[in-house]
Amino acid sequence: MKIGVLGTGMVGKTIGSKLIQLGHQVMMGSRTNNNEKAAVWVQEMESNASQGTFADAALFGELIFNCTSGGASLEVLTLAGASNLKGKIIIDIANPLDFSKGMPPTLSVCNDNSLAEEIQKVFPESKVVKTLNTLNCALMVNPNALNNGDHTIFMNGNDVDAKAEVRKLLNSFDWKNENIIDMGDITTARGTEQLLPIWIRLYGTLGTPNFQFKIVK
Amino acid sequence: MKIGVLGTGMVGKTIGSKLIQLGHQVMMGSRTNNNEKAAVWVQEMESNASQGTFADAALFGELIFNCTSGGASLEVLTLAGASNLKGKIIIDIANPLDFSKGMPPTLSVCNDNSLAEEIQKVFPESKVVKTLNTLNCALMVNPNALNNGDHTIFMNGNDVDAKAEVRKLLNSFDWKNENIIDMGDITTARGTEQLLPIWIRLYGTLGTPNFQFKIVK
Repeated sequence: MKIGVLGTGMVGKTIGSKLIQLGHQVMMGSRTNNNEKAAVWVQEMESNASQGTFADAALFGELIFNCTSGGASLEVLTLAGASNLKGKIIIDIANPLDFSKGMPPTLSVCNDNSLAEEIQKVFPESKVVKTLNTLNCALMVNPNALNNGDHTIFMNGNDVDAKAEVRKLLNSFDWKNENIIDMGDITTARGTEQLLPIWIRLYGTLGTPNFQFKIVK
Repeated sequence: MKIGVLGTGMVGKTIGSKLIQLGHQVMMGSRTNNNEKAAVWVQEMESNASQGTFADAALFGELIFNCTSGGASLEVLTLAGASNLKGKIIIDIANPLDFSKGMPPTLSVCNDNSLAEEIQKVFPESKVVKTLNTLNCALMVNPNALNNGDHTIFMNGNDVDAKAEVRKLLNSFDWKNENIIDMGDITTARGTEQLLPIWIRLYGTLGTPNFQFKIVK
């Protein structure tokens, strides 16, 4: 599958590399078509990797990963272009963390709204599925590295078929179906985004990002 | 131990009953000293249970449980009286849920503040320890009813000795030390209170309140 990955940070590189490993073709998008970090990543991959602007990557991808920082996501997706994103699934991994008031960060949108909802509102012809935003990126693509893969991720989105497709992709990342909880429509992303404040504090308390939430039933 | 339980709802009754079962003396506090729900509860208990106003219960208790609804907590604690609460541990189980805008509720305070912090600010001579606010009350006092008790609760508070005392009380409720995570000072309660939005949605998705968060390390 052709996939556009927006963002050249650790999350974008981790997701992009995993997708390449699974046989997908990936274009990494950034502000310019000659971004250095993207160029290094393309070189590291042996094949199937390319780079371009956000718009190039959005046009290239049949499916789009939003791996940008939450504060930049709406701007980045606007640069990517509604027409390039039209009809496509946007997997939103971003969190609306606001570091401007110091540490720990607060959320720039929360409680009665969420970043995922904002994205869905601005891009009504795309299918936003929020997932993977509640754990460290090493675990996103390798759940078995912790507790035999026995921990939980969430999915939020309005489009049932889109969520089914994302679930298959998550399965290919080794996520078991019983560990993927479909919370419901995109408004349920408020809950998953609001896991970030405790995630960040737990990172400090436990001294490692290598932990996860598990819903015990 | 003499313990004051503020609130006559399901949480107050469940906590009060468990404390009586463990041999403590419990006064349940409410707005009036003849509250009907408190009277029924006192009658149900065979001994060691009494009722009174919030102020009576706060004066009676060497330790205080705040089992009121979050929107009422500050008013209730004010009625209980700073002098009656002075030097005492307040175990804060409340969540600042705001149902005024419809379902699901939002949080009346969150992100850069929390109910627990507000309580600590208004009652600086008390020792606020937030805990048990992230799960159904049946599980609060009987963790072994789910997954052999193997799931997580959090503690937030500024006073290390107070948290040690609360930990012992939680142990007497059958919480194992490895399942109690001390997050740090009272500002970390922001994270635990912000678990409520996802808790409420999971309640809907899973169709039962009989689930829990577990931090997998």
